[in-house]
Amino acid sequence: MDQIKEITRKQTTVYDGHIIKVRLDEAELPDGTTAPREVVVHPGGVGIALEDDEGKFFFVTQWRYGQEKVMLEYPAGKKEPGEDPLTTAKREIIEETGYEGEGFVRLGSLVPTPAYDTEVIELYYARQGKFVGQHLDEDENINLSKLTLDEITQKILSGEVDDAKTVAMTFLIKEFKAGGRL
Amino acid sequence: MDQIKEITRKQTTVYDGHIIKVRLDEAELPDGTTAPREVVVHPGGVGIALEDDEGKFFFVTQWRYGQEKVMLEYPAGKKEPGEDPLTTAKREIIEETGYEGEGFVRLGSLVPTPAYDTEVIELYYARQGKFVGQHLDEDENINLSKLTLDEITQKILSGEVDDAKTVAMTFLIKEFKAGGRL
Repeated sequence: MDQIKEITRKQTTVYDGHIIKVRLDEAELPDGTTAPREVVVHPGGVGIALEDDEGKFFFVTQWRYGQEKVMLEYPAGKKEPGEDPLTTAKREIIEETGYEGEGFVRLGSLVPTPAYDTEVIELYYARQGKFVGQHLDEDENINLSKLTLDEITQKILSGEVDDAKTVAMTFLIKEFKAGGRL
Repeated sequence: MDQIKEITRKQTTVYDGHIIKVRLDEAELPDGTTAPREVVVHPGGVGIALEDDEGKFFFVTQWRYGQEKVMLEYPAGKKEPGEDPLTTAKREIIEETGYEGEGFVRLGSLVPTPAYDTEVIELYYARQGKFVGQHLDEDENINLSKLTLDEITQKILSGEVDDAKTVAMTFLIKEFKAGGRL
């Protein structure tokens, strides 16, 4: 690993925004030369698969501005600074679905954009608990729906669903269920 | 869909870099109010699963600067401006593995970061063809290895592999093979 490690020699913040920062760094490569490295700095987030008593999962449909389209995804949200990801998951699942999660199981973590972004998404599974009411952010417009694992798998294979965490989580849930871990 | 669409009212480029641009836009929400939207603009890329005659797939291991660690991933690369993704895939698989791909099959596309990034990754499967030699970029340090689908699945489930496209592609390949499409 040391043979391919790159060492930060200079760090410059070129944009300091609402959700992201962007740095343009100078990295020392293993051969001693340097190269520019752009990094989007993001606090990280969570994705939560919430299953009801009938084997259906909650999904959110929302306008994704950067993609200029509506996307169907597992509920998700970003961490507050320094927040433990399980705390984020418990908060976000209520905010987006109105239901508490019970018996949270960590499915793993996911690096969506390894080439230029610090973001890591922690993935959780939970069972539907008590209804306590949705709390969406002011600028969030979300439609809720429920699908079985087979239904979401079909949407993935047909290309209708292409959100990376949703694809990964669906198959991780299947593997966890097949292995008796859920 | 029209009820949740957000319309761009103002576009401002706040960073124009090597690989990415960043925009801070003003979007009009369905209720007529406006909200800021940060967008990382990326040309998009490809991921390629190259299978040899023994059922093993090529993987690249490299230092991922933004994640500050070594990551194992399917070969991948970004599109040149205006490039057809299949052309990118055919070029990148040679550059990173030294082998041509044969019989390319599109597995689908993936949105790694729907909340704030335009990036879309097109996913391909191909069979190992003729050896023509690696052509790495000057600042690329890549180690090649080969793994079976079972071996990469174990690394995903153990948490050792967390690259989103690698997780998604592994399970898509399994579904395509189970459905007789590969």
